[in-house]
Parts: sequence; structure tokens; C-alpha cells
Amino acid sequence: MDEITFAVLGTGGIGRRALEVSQYKDTLTPVAACDRHGVAVDFDGLDVDELLAATEGNIDSEPRDDEVVTDGGAATSTAEGGVKQHGEDRGVVASSQARPSEDPIQAIIDHGDRIDAVLLALPNYEHDFIPRTADRFAEGGYAGVVIDVLKRSRVIDMLDDRSEAFEESGITFICGAGATPGLLTGAAALAAQSFVEVTDVDIWWGVGLESGYEDNRGTVREDIAHLPEYDIETARELSEDEIEAIIDDRDGVIEFEDMEHADDVLLERAGVCDAEDVSVGGILDVRNDEKPTTTTVRVTGRTFDGETATNTFRLGDETSMEANVNGPALGYLKAGVRRNRAGEYGVFGPAELMPGF
Amino acid sequence: MDEITFAVLGTGGIGRRALEVSQYKDTLTPVAACDRHGVAVDFDGLDVDELLAATEGNIDSEPRDDEVVTDGGAATSTAEGGVKQHGEDRGVVASSQARPSEDPIQAIIDHGDRIDAVLLALPNYEHDFIPRTADRFAEGGYAGVVIDVLKRSRVIDMLDDRSEAFEESGITFICGAGATPGLLTGAAALAAQSFVEVTDVDIWWGVGLESGYEDNRGTVREDIAHLPEYDIETARELSEDEIEAIIDDRDGVIEFEDMEHADDVLLERAGVCDAEDVSVGGILDVRNDEKPTTTTVRVTGRTFDGETATNTFRLGDETSMEANVNGPALGYLKAGVRRNRAGEYGVFGPAELMPGF
Repeated sequence: MDEITFAVLGTGGIGRRALEVSQYKDTLTPVAACDRHGVAVDFDGLDVDELLAATEGNIDSEPRDDEVVTDGGAATSTAEGGVKQHGEDRGVVASSQARPSEDPIQAIIDHGDRIDAVLLALPNYEHDFIPRTADRFAEGGYAGVVIDVLKRSRVIDMLDDRSEAFEESGITFICGAGATPGLLTGAAALAAQSFVEVTDVDIWWGVGLESGYEDNRGTVREDIAHLPEYDIETARELSEDEIEAIIDDRDGVIEFEDMEHADDVLLERAGVCDAEDVSVGGILDVRNDEKPTTTTVRVTGRTFDGETATNTFRLGDETSMEANVNGPALGYLKAGVRRNRAGEYGVFGPAELMPGF
Repeated sequence: MDEITFAVLGTGGIGRRALEVSQYKDTLTPVAACDRHGVAVDFDGLDVDELLAATEGNIDSEPRDDEVVTDGGAATSTAEGGVKQHGEDRGVVASSQARPSEDPIQAIIDHGDRIDAVLLALPNYEHDFIPRTADRFAEGGYAGVVIDVLKRSRVIDMLDDRSEAFEESGITFICGAGATPGLLTGAAALAAQSFVEVTDVDIWWGVGLESGYEDNRGTVREDIAHLPEYDIETARELSEDEIEAIIDDRDGVIEFEDMEHADDVLLERAGVCDAEDVSVGGILDVRNDEKPTTTTVRVTGRTFDGETATNTFRLGDETSMEANVNGPALGYLKAGVRRNRAGEYGVFGPAELMPGF
């Protein structure tokens, strides 16, 4: 595949790790990165080492009182707005490659004709933040790939509403392309190939987050909204101390069942199964880096010759959340660029980039 | 996806099962099928039930003295030239939908403008038979998908030599799209996404073939060529009795290691790993339908954060060889048609239809 230039919107956990992982990919050149207060652009390729070193522990952050806490799962960090900030030059402008900007996203859009793909690694300020950001790219005349690692089922519908606008603009929007949804959704779609009918998809994740806990407090709060005793509103109103108490009650280990995760709608739109046949759950351990359970996808179905069987995909316990989010995100980004260059525009989920079912 | 019309060349084990499985796929319409002596064409869709019933136990067959026995693995049947033949109307012409033809492949090519994809489910008469058949389609002005379920590494190179001709013709050639290579190659490419470097891909298959043994004697002979005591030539010269003796010696269970399988070159061409890092082996049991071992793909690699881990994909033991070949073959066929309609021509392996590595 030819050279691909890409930009990262957001330099929190996911944005930083995406830049880092891209250094292992010969065909990928990061040419722009921004947060809310600054932007770095270099079409010879950003100096990722300098950018990461300069911004270490210096992540831009704002209070997020308006955040709608609805996200599920700990497989991606949505707290990449971060918890750390120091000094005046907070955020990406701490890098010598960056400059302050009143409108950093517009600065990226203005360079859009030289950017093949834009990875949205943005905090979930509001649940329509990613769709509205995509609107800006479409309205700004951007033609290329836009990709996110979102998890909320509802956001897929909001993106679908924009499908026509994306097609007119020449945008290929890849949604839900992290670990789950993302890697595990793709694995489910592939595992389905043995069957003529898929009856159950069971996604079960394990995340050990000790060393990443400080950076992922927002995710933990969002996950708490999935516990039977809480909902979006009550989780949102919890104080930090109350959250710590919930974690203490469980000795740092929180188990989730029947989470609202976009794997369901993404598999349904690819024709693999009905959304209601997909279940997502997992265990988060904030006091260990070892996974409390093995991340596993089980796809059960019926074969053409009348047998019922379960195909299984398991991630090695040593693979971190960050490895399983960012590798697939860049992999789907490359697949998206290929689609975009062939003239395929609109909204695509991970499973639609797999063999057809 | 829009409606897809497809033709099947060869009505042995794979061709017949592909027609059968396609009945479960709303978007797929089989419009043509042929063997060496006849062809059935109906653009309203073949009556698959009639065709399968009429030709049951009536598979066209010729002595195959010129066959180069080099194929490995039992995951696909290469004996679909078959062992059964009865009466004058042997083969596909036993169906009321078919007519005899001096050149059935040409009859398909002549209808090529109404056929989106052609599945080559042909016996391996010679190792260049599939490439030469593809040549005929290119020379005959066919523009669409050609897909095979071949296993031989060397054939991939022969197809690559034709890449330019395919591009000029508008042909998207999908090679090695059965179980292994095919489903398991794709699983390996997806499992690789957690890693920045893949060090080992270990593919291990199990096939129980009691009820399919009669139809797959050719495959068993080919597999024997992979045993340490034999090679292509010596296996080719074995009599039926000698093959039975080899099977008896092992109580019907034959184990294979380090097989020559195209998974290696297909993963290398997708940039996942070096061909030499891929190993393929398995166990064939011709006296049980139960699999003697669980088909498993293990992908070991290094993550960006320095961990080494193994991701694993397992097929349920109840999934038959036929289910794992034909589901993926039709899945990759659909993916190929999508590529073809977007104007992407040339030669593609399964792993190249996955997220980029």
C-alpha cells in the first residue's frame, strides 16, 4: 500500500498511543496532532518522540461538567482529556512542533487535502461531539478517512444520519474501530463464516488498569453507570470519594454484564446477526495490571450441514488495552484509506471491512 | 450489498457444497455451473436442489494420471473430480438444467458480462491448471471476480505473474480463500493486530473424514506426500492398496507437520510476517467424523509496550471441513465483488481483505 498521512485529534491516552504505535508502521506518517488549545503540523512527519516527551504528564484538561456519561466498557479510554495539567503551556503546545490555536480542528481541516485519514481520539464531551466534529470536516471540504474508537451504540445512528453528507464530501467514516467494538467485532464477523446462521455472540473482556488508573478515571466512572445499582445520571453525580468507595467495596474489581456496546449494532449492520443476539460484559481490575479474566469472543451458530458449534477468539492476557485499541485502530485506518481511494464513501463499521456474511 | 451472480466451475465436493451454502445467502444467486462435459446456465438462478439431487453420486470423473500431487492438507477437497460415475449422462448433464458442451468453460466466459464472480472449484489436474483457467477468462474479456480455494504456495506466484493481465482485464483474483488458507489466514491477520511484530503463526487443523472419505481419496493421497517417508513423486506412484496400508498402519489417523501451505506466502504478502514464521500441520482421521484435534490458529507477537503474547482462534469441533471451506469462500467472494465494483483489480489473498497490518 502507498504512503498514508494521518492526523490525530486529541493527544490524551489514545491519541498519544496511536502516534507511538504508528512508528512501527512503515506506510503510516503522522503529519498533524492537536488538542483544544494547540496544533502541530509537519508534512515531513511529526517527531513523535519529541511530541510525546514534551507533553508527558502535561495533558490538556478542562472540567467536563457537561459530559454525558453513557459510555460502556473499559477497553478504550474516554478520559483522554486527562487528569494532568501543569503550567501555562498545557497540552500539545508544550511540544516545540506545536503552536497555540483558537480553532485547532479548523487548522487540521485547512490542511485536509494533504491528510489521508483523521483519527478522532477525542474525549466524549457530549455524546454528539464526534458526529459534530465529523460535520465540520464534511462542511470544510475534507475528502478522506475519518475514524473513531467510540463505543456507544447511539453514536452509530447519529453517524448514519450523516451518511449522505459523507458520500457527497468523499468521506469514508470508520466507526467503532478500537478493541471492542473494533478488533473483537471483526473477530466475531470472521468467526461467523463457518455458519449459515449466528445465534449468539458473547464478548467478554478483561482489563487490568493499575498503572493506567490515573489516566482512566473517567472511564471508570462511565463503567459504573453500567452496574445494576447505577445509571447514567446517578453515576454522573458521584463524587470522586464515592467512586473510590464503590471500588473499595469491590476490592478494586468491578464486573459488568449486558453492557451497552456498539458491537451489537455494528454486527447487525454487517448482516452477521441481530443486535439483540450480542452480549458484552467484562471485568475491570484497577489494582492490578494483570487481566482479571481473558478477553474472549464466542460466536455460536448453525452450520449448513445442521451442526451447532462455537468458534472462539482469545487475546493473550499480556496484551494491554492500549495494544488492543491502537493496533486495530491503525489497521482499520489503513483499510479505510484503501476504501476511500477506491471511491467508497459513507459510514462503515469494522465488520463491514471483513469478508461478507 | 447489491445482488451478486456467480458461477461455479467444477461440481465435485466443493462446487456442490458452495451451491448448497449459497442458498442461505440472500444476496448470492448461482447462475451457472459446469464440469468438463456440461454446463447449466440460468440467470433467474439455478435450481440448486434439482441440480444437486440429479447429480448425486453421479460426479464426472476422468483418470488423472497427469496430476501433479503436491497439495497439502485435508482442509479442502481436491478430489472433486470425484470417484463416482454412472451411465452416459455422467456429471452435471444429469441435471435437467444442463446441456452437454465441448467447451463448458468457454460457455461460462461467453456469459461473463452477466456473472459477477466465478468460483474455481476445479480438480488439480496440473499445478498450473487454475492459472491457465484464469488466463482463459482474462483472454476471453471477462471482467469480474475469480476466486479459488487452492492451497499450494507455488500457485500464488503463478497468479502474481498474471497480475498485470488481470488488472488490464478488470479481474479481481482472490486466491486461497477456503479454510486454510482462507478463514484461518484471515484469523491470523486479524489476531496480528494486537502486535507491532509477529514472530510466529501456528496453524493446526483437525479433520474427521469418515463419511467424506470416498469423495476425498485424492486429498488423502496428496496429504501422504507430506509425510516424512514420502514425497510428491513417491506418493503419486502409490497404489490404492498401498495407501490403504499406510492408513491401516496408523489406525486411520495421520499426523502432518510443516506442511507446504499457502498461508505462509499469503500472510507475507499482506505484510503480517515472514513466510518462514508460519507453520501448518494437522491431524486427519479417515475413520471418524469427529475431529481428532481442535483446529487452532496461534499468533504470537510483540506489543508496542514490550510484551510478548499469543492470540488464539479456535474452530468449534462440530464445524465440518465443508462448512469451514465454503462459508469463507462465499464470504471472500462477496468481499472480492465489492473490491471489483470499486475498481480494484489484480491478485488478492484473504489477509489483504482484512484490516491492514
